Amino acid sequence: MSTERVLTGITTTGTPHLGNYVGAIRPSIEAANTAGAESFFFLADYHALIKCQDPALIRQSSKEIAATWMALGLDTQKAVFYRQSDIPQIPELTWILCCNAAKGLMNRAHAYKAAVSANEEAGEDPDHAVTVGLFSYPVLMAADILMFNGGKIPVGRDQIQHVEMARDIAQRFNHNFEDLFTLPEAVVDDSVAVLQGLDGRKMSKSYNNTIPLFLEEKPLRKAINKIKTNLLEPGEPKDPDESTVFQVWAAFASESETERMRDEFANGIAWGEAKKQLFELVNNELADARVRYRELLNDPEHIERVLQAGAQRARDYSVPLMEKVRAAVGIGSIVG
Amino acid sequence: MSTERVLTGITTTGTPHLGNYVGAIRPSIEAANTAGAESFFFLADYHALIKCQDPALIRQSSKEIAATWMALGLDTQKAVFYRQSDIPQIPELTWILCCNAAKGLMNRAHAYKAAVSANEEAGEDPDHAVTVGLFSYPVLMAADILMFNGGKIPVGRDQIQHVEMARDIAQRFNHNFEDLFTLPEAVVDDSVAVLQGLDGRKMSKSYNNTIPLFLEEKPLRKAINKIKTNLLEPGEPKDPDESTVFQVWAAFASESETERMRDEFANGIAWGEAKKQLFELVNNELADARVRYRELLNDPEHIERVLQAGAQRARDYSVPLMEKVRAAVGIGSIVG
Repeated sequence: MSTERVLTGITTTGTPHLGNYVGAIRPSIEAANTAGAESFFFLADYHALIKCQDPALIRQSSKEIAATWMALGLDTQKAVFYRQSDIPQIPELTWILCCNAAKGLMNRAHAYKAAVSANEEAGEDPDHAVTVGLFSYPVLMAADILMFNGGKIPVGRDQIQHVEMARDIAQRFNHNFEDLFTLPEAVVDDSVAVLQGLDGRKMSKSYNNTIPLFLEEKPLRKAINKIKTNLLEPGEPKDPDESTVFQVWAAFASESETERMRDEFANGIAWGEAKKQLFELVNNELADARVRYRELLNDPEHIERVLQAGAQRARDYSVPLMEKVRAAVGIGSIVG
Repeated sequence: MSTERVLTGITTTGTPHLGNYVGAIRPSIEAANTAGAESFFFLADYHALIKCQDPALIRQSSKEIAATWMALGLDTQKAVFYRQSDIPQIPELTWILCCNAAKGLMNRAHAYKAAVSANEEAGEDPDHAVTVGLFSYPVLMAADILMFNGGKIPVGRDQIQHVEMARDIAQRFNHNFEDLFTLPEAVVDDSVAVLQGLDGRKMSKSYNNTIPLFLEEKPLRKAINKIKTNLLEPGEPKDPDESTVFQVWAAFASESETERMRDEFANGIAWGEAKKQLFELVNNELADARVRYRELLNDPEHIERVLQAGAQRARDYSVPLMEKVRAAVGIGSIVG
């Protein structure tokens, strides 16, 4: 049980945007391809069911997300890249962990508490429109993590609680039955860039301010031109630290290129020119991957084969672990 | 989807006693062996995990319960007789149904409410010692039922709510996605005997007043002799309707034999004699099955083979249904 095992899930309910790329996909792929760490990446389609009742959207998103990671060069021979719903041991472990997870723990989960607050503010029953899935998904997340004995779980600050819950549930299981699970640890990397969106707020689907990652050149240029700027004229010095254009630039440029642009801002670069350069920078980084992405989307059979191969490798871990778990709790064969 | 499909689960946390036999096992086996109904019986070992953290006990109970049904002549070629944990589609369906089940429904479940009341009376936190498993098991039960499109679910009065919840969850799923699930119906048979235990209360493990079903002759005689009686002497008329001895008699005897014993009571039969006759009656009904039961317990490999064959037949239903369910919600293969 290595603590150098890194595990990341991606919920399959949207199309990746530049914020996902900068904040999660690019650093994850770099880490997976270079480090000595074993990396597990999965399409979290069981999680998608909590929020989304549109099967076509989940399927499309699964395809796009898989194609994105592959197009951007994730080494799927090295990393274990799989779809959650190809691992039948995960829902089984979820149920077994449910029997070891305190309900009180779920009562304190951020997402559930936020739903209750919103209901109370709206004068509704506290559990209005809350499903058992929304309430208990930290247990599914614990199963995701514990199934592969993920030691280090890279998360945003808002996800630390989930890893702590998985840890708590693992401790209870280990105590009640047998020491089968590594206690996972949240790794928060505050240096990871949070990208601003078109309106200057954090780029996020919920704000409707995103730039999809693999826009074709023309719409990408158009989207970048839509980034909100102030009214300063060409020649007037501009504050880079107040500018979304500069912030996105910094997320894509080298250090020296970032310094150059900082100077250009001081020298009053025109917004149009800054955006033109930003388009070229972003487009340059993504153009090749975009071609591969289109090719992959046109060849879902290939994506599916890669996912199946990944699932097979994931099951090489999950099947033997679940045999131990089943024996530890007393279910399954009566012979032996 | 036949509404003549009957489904029954038996939690694997105890040794069957005479009350289980009279109230559930005997009538179920009769129905399964004779009627045109398709019968599904399963060892509910995922449910056992909610209450029991003793793997040896669950395993032993699974063996004893399987041996009991087989020894009593369940036609396992006709009925589908399987162990819940051999059907990986069940926990998967459970998760999918979790995403379609209102948390508010679980808040109102009898077992959960009883736990909360007990905690509140004890001055504890309402959710003290409540696991997510205890809270959400009606969803597991819904998966048990809906997986096989069980139309009629024979239950005691205390279980009606579970079937209604399964119905509610099925309706939501059918409405949200596709009409895949038969709406189950609780069938309460009030004519089924509730057997009294040694102390005159309902025979139940929780009252510690049971007579295990397959006691050997000597301990069986001893147990029957322990049934509580009053102090009336031989020759004094006795009220059969106040007597546990008579009540157990009636559960095993033919109508005419029951009438004969009623007369004997009026004629002042001695308690010792009544118990002697009761022992002979019960022993006579169970002796052959007891021999088969011992043989089966000595041949767990045979039990396991029967359970595996049953699981295969159960999966003949669960696999294609889950393929439809997965397609309906949008998980699994992106090809097609």
